[in-house]
Amino acid sequence: MSQISQEKQSTPEQDGEPIDVVIMAAGKGTRMKSSLPKVLHRLGGRALVSHVVDTALELRARKVVIVTGHGAPDVEEALHAATEQGAPMAFVRQSPQLGTGHAVQQAVPALDDDGTTVVLSGDVPLIAKDTLAALVRASAGRRLALLTIEFDDPTGYGRILRDGEQVQAIVEHKDATPEQRQVREVYSGIMAVPTRLLKPWLARLDNKNAQGEYYLTDIVRLATLDEVPVVATRIADALQVAGVNDPAQLAQLERAYQLRQANMLMTQGVRLADPARFDLRGTLVCAADVEIDVNCVFEGAVSLGAGVRIGANCVIANARIEPGAVIHPFTHIDGEKAGVTVGAASLVGPFARLRPGARLGTEVHIGNFVEIKNATLAHGAKANHLAYIGDATVGERVNYGAGSITANYDGANKHRTVIGDDVHIGSNCVLVAPVTIGAGGTVGGGSTINKSTEPGGLAVARARQSYYPNWTRPVKKKPA
Amino acid sequence: MSQISQEKQSTPEQDGEPIDVVIMAAGKGTRMKSSLPKVLHRLGGRALVSHVVDTALELRARKVVIVTGHGAPDVEEALHAATEQGAPMAFVRQSPQLGTGHAVQQAVPALDDDGTTVVLSGDVPLIAKDTLAALVRASAGRRLALLTIEFDDPTGYGRILRDGEQVQAIVEHKDATPEQRQVREVYSGIMAVPTRLLKPWLARLDNKNAQGEYYLTDIVRLATLDEVPVVATRIADALQVAGVNDPAQLAQLERAYQLRQANMLMTQGVRLADPARFDLRGTLVCAADVEIDVNCVFEGAVSLGAGVRIGANCVIANARIEPGAVIHPFTHIDGEKAGVTVGAASLVGPFARLRPGARLGTEVHIGNFVEIKNATLAHGAKANHLAYIGDATVGERVNYGAGSITANYDGANKHRTVIGDDVHIGSNCVLVAPVTIGAGGTVGGGSTINKSTEPGGLAVARARQSYYPNWTRPVKKKPA
Amino acid sequence: MSQISQEKQSTPEQDGEPIDVVIMAAGKGTRMKSSLPKVLHRLGGRALVSHVVDTALELRARKVVIVTGHGAPDVEEALHAATEQGAPMAFVRQSPQLGTGHAVQQAVPALDDDGTTVVLSGDVPLIAKDTLAALVRASAGRRLALLTIEFDDPTGYGRILRDGEQVQAIVEHKDATPEQRQVREVYSGIMAVPTRLLKPWLARLDNKNAQGEYYLTDIVRLATLDEVPVVATRIADALQVAGVNDPAQLAQLERAYQLRQANMLMTQGVRLADPARFDLRGTLVCAADVEIDVNCVFEGAVSLGAGVRIGANCVIANARIEPGAVIHPFTHIDGEKAGVTVGAASLVGPFARLRPGARLGTEVHIGNFVEIKNATLAHGAKANHLAYIGDATVGERVNYGAGSITANYDGANKHRTVIGDDVHIGSNCVLVAPVTIGAGGTVGGGSTINKSTEPGGLAVARARQSYYPNWTRPVKKKPA
Repeated sequence: MSQISQEKQSTPEQDGEPIDVVIMAAGKGTRMKSSLPKVLHRLGGRALVSHVVDTALELRARKVVIVTGHGAPDVEEALHAATEQGAPMAFVRQSPQLGTGHAVQQAVPALDDDGTTVVLSGDVPLIAKDTLAALVRASAGRRLALLTIEFDDPTGYGRILRDGEQVQAIVEHKDATPEQRQVREVYSGIMAVPTRLLKPWLARLDNKNAQGEYYLTDIVRLATLDEVPVVATRIADALQVAGVNDPAQLAQLERAYQLRQANMLMTQGVRLADPARFDLRGTLVCAADVEIDVNCVFEGAVSLGAGVRIGANCVIANARIEPGAVIHPFTHIDGEKAGVTVGAASLVGPFARLRPGARLGTEVHIGNFVEIKNATLAHGAKANHLAYIGDATVGERVNYGAGSITANYDGANKHRTVIGDDVHIGSNCVLVAPVTIGAGGTVGGGSTINKSTEPGGLAVARARQSYYPNWTRPVKKKPA
Repeated sequence: MSQISQEKQSTPEQDGEPIDVVIMAAGKGTRMKSSLPKVLHRLGGRALVSHVVDTALELRARKVVIVTGHGAPDVEEALHAATEQGAPMAFVRQSPQLGTGHAVQQAVPALDDDGTTVVLSGDVPLIAKDTLAALVRASAGRRLALLTIEFDDPTGYGRILRDGEQVQAIVEHKDATPEQRQVREVYSGIMAVPTRLLKPWLARLDNKNAQGEYYLTDIVRLATLDEVPVVATRIADALQVAGVNDPAQLAQLERAYQLRQANMLMTQGVRLADPARFDLRGTLVCAADVEIDVNCVFEGAVSLGAGVRIGANCVIANARIEPGAVIHPFTHIDGEKAGVTVGAASLVGPFARLRPGARLGTEVHIGNFVEIKNATLAHGAKANHLAYIGDATVGERVNYGAGSITANYDGANKHRTVIGDDVHIGSNCVLVAPVTIGAGGTVGGGSTINKSTEPGGLAVARARQSYYPNWTRPVKKKPA
Repeated sequence: MSQISQEKQSTPEQDGEPIDVVIMAAGKGTRMKSSLPKVLHRLGGRALVSHVVDTALELRARKVVIVTGHGAPDVEEALHAATEQGAPMAFVRQSPQLGTGHAVQQAVPALDDDGTTVVLSGDVPLIAKDTLAALVRASAGRRLALLTIEFDDPTGYGRILRDGEQVQAIVEHKDATPEQRQVREVYSGIMAVPTRLLKPWLARLDNKNAQGEYYLTDIVRLATLDEVPVVATRIADALQVAGVNDPAQLAQLERAYQLRQANMLMTQGVRLADPARFDLRGTLVCAADVEIDVNCVFEGAVSLGAGVRIGANCVIANARIEPGAVIHPFTHIDGEKAGVTVGAASLVGPFARLRPGARLGTEVHIGNFVEIKNATLAHGAKANHLAYIGDATVGERVNYGAGSITANYDGANKHRTVIGDDVHIGSNCVLVAPVTIGAGGTVGGGSTINKSTEPGGLAVARARQSYYPNWTRPVKKKPA
C-alpha cells in the first residue's frame, strides 16, 4: 500500500529544545487581484497557509503562531478545523502591516524564551519538515540560522555575504555593489533563531529606511554586533522556498507540486499514462497495479484497490474503489462527506455519476448516463443505461432497466425505494417511493409503480395500445 | 474586469502619414497537405490571415490590400465579414505566383503615393500592432525599414548585413559567405516603406535568379543604389514573426499563442489550474476571482462574472456566466448565435448541455444528463437529472423531474411549453407542446400531458397498476 | 491517405544471411512494483515485448526466440496471437535467471549456425528495424557488431573503449578508470553477431564476478582473444535504446512515443490542436484535412475519412468514421470486435456513446446522452436526446424521440426492434422487442409499444389525463 498524505508523523525534533513556529500570513497579495487573502489561495486543493501549518505540526512545534492581517477573520476561520483538533495554534493580528520585523514582533507575547523560533511565510507552501529540522539543528540553541538557496538569476533577492561558514550580512539587491550582485546565494525568508536572542533583537529594530518598515533581516546585523554566530543552511530544491505572488506563480507552483505528487505515486508503482495530466487535491492511497489514464482529477480522500483501472478524463473525490474495479472514461464520482464505495470487480461508466452515499457491492455494473445517490446496490446488480437511482436499496443481481427512475422526492420529502434480489425492472419505469418491489419480481416497461409488490410475479401499469390507421401527420406550417 | 479581445483601439498612428498595408495571402501551403488555402488555417479559432487583417485595422490602416492567389475566392469569402463591417479592404489577385515582389506589384494600383506601405504575410499571424507602429516610425516617410530578429540558429534565413544603423543588404543563406552565415540577425519578411519610393523600385525588379522569381527583398539593393537609407528594427519576440508552413508549426504556434493568452488572463487575476491545458478561441472577459480548472476550452464570446468557477473538462462557447455561478466538470455550453445565459449563483453540471437560447435565471440548478435549448428557466428552477427542456418557459422554483421531456416537436413544427411558478413535474413525464401547466400545479410521475392545466391541482395520466402473481419469466433460449 | 501502422513490410534484409532474433524477456522488473512481468507493461497500448517482436518480424527474422522467465506463461500467452498467425516464434525458458549471457545460452538450441543472431531486450521497445538492419550489415557475417549511443551523462552505463573503428572492450561503469569514465559512448544492450561465432563464445562464458552472473558482454573480450573484429554502430536517437525499469520511465517513454506518433501524423497533414495531449494506442489512418481537438484518445484500429473533425475530449476505439463526419466533444466510441461505423457527414455527440455494432449511415445525427449498440441507422435518421437504441434496425429519416428506449432484453433473451423509413417515435416511448414499426408510422409520446404496427398510422398507448383541482401537496415532515 502506498500513500501520499499529510498525516502527522512522530519526529525526533522534540528531543532538543522546544520549537515554536511563527507564520507570517498578514499580506494582501495585491498582485493576486483577488478578494481572497493571499495565503488562502489554494495549492493542491488546500490553502497555501494550511500547507505551512501542517509542516509546522509535522515538525512537532510546541506552538504555531499565525500572524494575520489582511482578511484575518477569513484566515483564522480557514484554519479553525486544525485548531479544533487540538493543534497548538495561536493567532495574533498585525495591523497596520509595518514590515516583516513588525510582523514577528506581534508574535513575541506568544513565544516562550526557552525555545527556538522558526519563522515561515504563509505564502511559501512547500517548505519541507526535514529542511526545517536541519535548520533548527544548525541554530543549535545559540546561532541565528538562515535558510538560503542559490539562484542562477538572483536579481531582486537579498544576497548572502559569507566569510566561510559565517554569514556577514544580507544585502538587498538594490543596495548591493556590482561585486555583491555576483553572489548567487540568496536568503529564502526562512530562519531559525533561539527565542531568547530573537526577542531583544526585535525590540531593537527600527524603520529608518526608504520604505519606513521594520525588516526582520536587520537582526543579522544585530547578531553580528552581539557576536552571535550567523550560519546559513543552503538547499538545492527551489520549490521549497518558492513563494506565491500572482496567479502565474500559483499555477507554476501547482504544476510543480502535481508533478512531484505524480512522481511519488509512480515510485510506489502507480502507472500514470501522463504525469503532466494528473491532479491530486487531497490524499490518494493506491494498492498495487493501479493504472490511471490521462487527464484525471482526484480530490479529498480517495483509495484505489489492487488492480483498479481509472479511465481517461475521470473526476473522483472522496471515494473508495475496491480491488479490480474498472472506472471507464468520463466518470464523475464525488462522495462528499457521505463517501462513495465501488465494490470489487465492479464496472462503472463511461458517463456515470456516483454521488454521496452510493454504495456499490461486488461486480455491480453502472453504465452510461446513470446517476446513483444515497443508494446501496448489492452484488451483481446492473443499471446500464440512462437511469436514476436515489434513496434506494437494490438487491443482488437486480437488472434495472434503461430510462427508469426512482421517484424519491414528492416535492416535500424524500422516500426510500426497496428492490429485492433478482428483480427485473423494465425500461422507462417510475418507482414512486416509498415502494418495495419483492424479490424475484418483474416490472413491465413503461410502468409507473406506486404500490409495493410481493416477491415474484409481474407488476404492470400500462395503457392498452391503440392504432389509428388513417391518422394525418402534422404539416409543417409556413412562418407567419 | 479583464478582457482579451480583438477590438479596434484608437491609436496615434494616423497622426503621421497614412499607412497602407499589403498582406501577401496567395500561397498554397503545400506542406500543410490540405485543400484549405494556407492563410485560412486557424490559430486560436480564427484564420491566420484574419489575425493579420485585424492587426492592420488596429494600426488604423487607411487601406488593407490583400493579395490572394491559391483559393482566392475562399480567402475573400472568409474575410467578407470584415469587409461588410466597413473595414477599408481591397483584394487583388496574383496569378500566376511569381514571387514576393510580384505579389506586392499586384497591389500597386490600389496604393496611393502619399502613404507608407507596410508589407505583411498572411501566414505570420502574431505580429503586434506596436511593432508595426515602431517600424513605420523608423521608416519616417523617407527610409526603407525592415523588421528583423536574431535567431540562435539562423540557418535558412536571409542575413542582415549592417554598417552600424544602416542595413547594407539582405543576403540569402545559400548565397552567404561563411563569415556572413555567422550573422544571426535575419529578415522577418515584414517591412515599411514610403509608397512613393516603393512603386518605382517594384517596377525595376527583375527575375534573373535561380528560381525565376521577383523578390521583394531586392528593393534593399535598389534603395542602396538610390541612396535611400535602409534601417532595421529588431525585435526580441520570435512569436511575432513566426510563420506557418506545416501542421507541426501550426500546432506549435497554437500552443505558444494559447500560453500567451493564459498568461495574459493570469496577469488580470484569473486563476488557471494549468495554463498548458487551456484553450481560448475567441474572446474571454473575466471579472475578479474567476477560477478555471484543467482542460477547458472556450470559444466565441464568453464572459465570466465575479467568482465564477469552471470545473475540469468544460467546453464553453458564446455564453454569459453571471457572478457566483458554478459550472461543474464535463459541461458543454454553446450558445451559437442566440447565446446562453447562466444566472448568478446557478449550478450547472456535471454532464449538462446548454444549447442556443438557454436562459437560466438566478440560482437555477441544472444537473447531470440534462439538455436545455431555447428555454427560459426563472429563479430557483431545478432540473437535476436526465431531462430535456426545449422551447419552454419555466417559472420560479419549478422542480422538473428526472427523465421528463418537453415534447416540442410534432414531427413538423416546434411548439412551446409553459410551466408556471412553483410547479412540480414528476419523473419520466412527457409534456406534449403546446401545453401550459398552471402555477403551483403538480404533474404525477409517468404522465403524458397534452392538455393544459389550471393553476394548482394535480394532473395525472397513468394506467392502473396490475399484478400477475403467477407470471412466468422468459427463459433463456438456447442458440439455434 | 496516411497511416501509422505496425504492419509487416517487405524488406531487403533477407537477401543476405538469415537473421535470427533473441529477445530477452525473463526479467521481473522489481522496480515496476507490479505483479505483471515487466515486458508485459504496455506502451501505446501494447506490451513492451510486442513492440520488439513486431520489429523483429519487420526485419524478416527467420526465427524469433523469446527467452522467458518471470511470468513466463503470461508472456507466452500475450504473444500467442502472433504465433497463431504463423510468425516464426519460439519460446525458451530461463530458470533461474543467471545473467544476460545465461539468457542467450538458453536460446542456443533454437539457433542455426548459418545465420546472424540479433540480441534484443523485451523492455527496450522502440528499437527501429532500419537500425537493426544497419547493425546486421555492420556484422557482415564475420564481425561482432554492438549498437552504441553517446549520452551527455553516461553514469552507470558500460563504456565503449575504441581504437578507431575497432571496439577494444566494454568496461562497466564501476570498473572504469576516471579517464574511461570520460567516455560518453555506451553499449545499448543490442548486438548482432554471426551465430557460428556466438555459440562457442557463449559456451566459454563464466560467472566469476561479483554478481556471480554470466554476462553477455564478456563475449567482446572473447572476440578480441579470437581476433574477431568488434565494431560499433552508433545511433543518435536515444528513444530507440531507452529501457523501462520503473513506472516513471514507462510514463516518460509513453509520452515520447506519443509525441513521435503525433509528429508523424502532422507530417501527413493531420491537424492536432495539441500534440502533447494526443494518445494513440493502436493504428490511426487519416485521410486529408482531418482535425483532432485537444485531449483525444484513440485505441485499436481507427480510420478517419477526409475532412473528419474530432472534438475535444473524445475517446475513440475500433471505429471507421467516414468523410465529413463531425464527432463533437465528450464522445465515447468503442467498436471492440464488432466495430463501429459513422457514415459520411454524420454528426455525433456531445456526450454520445457508440458501442459495438453501431452502424450509422450518411447524415445520421446522434445527440447528447444517446447510446447506440448493435444497431443500424439508415441515412438521415436522428436520435438527438437521451435515448437508447440497441439491437435495432432504424430506417431512413426516422426521428427517434427524446427519452425513448428499445427494450431489447426481456431478462433472458435479446430481441430486435425494426423501425421503418420515415417513422416518428415520440418522447419517452418504450419499444418492447421483438417489435416492428411500419414505415411512415408515428408513435405517440409516452407510449409503451409491444405490438407491431402497419406502415402509416399512429400507435398510442396512453392513459387518459385526469385533473384533481383540490389536490393537497405533501408537506415537509419535521425530522423525528
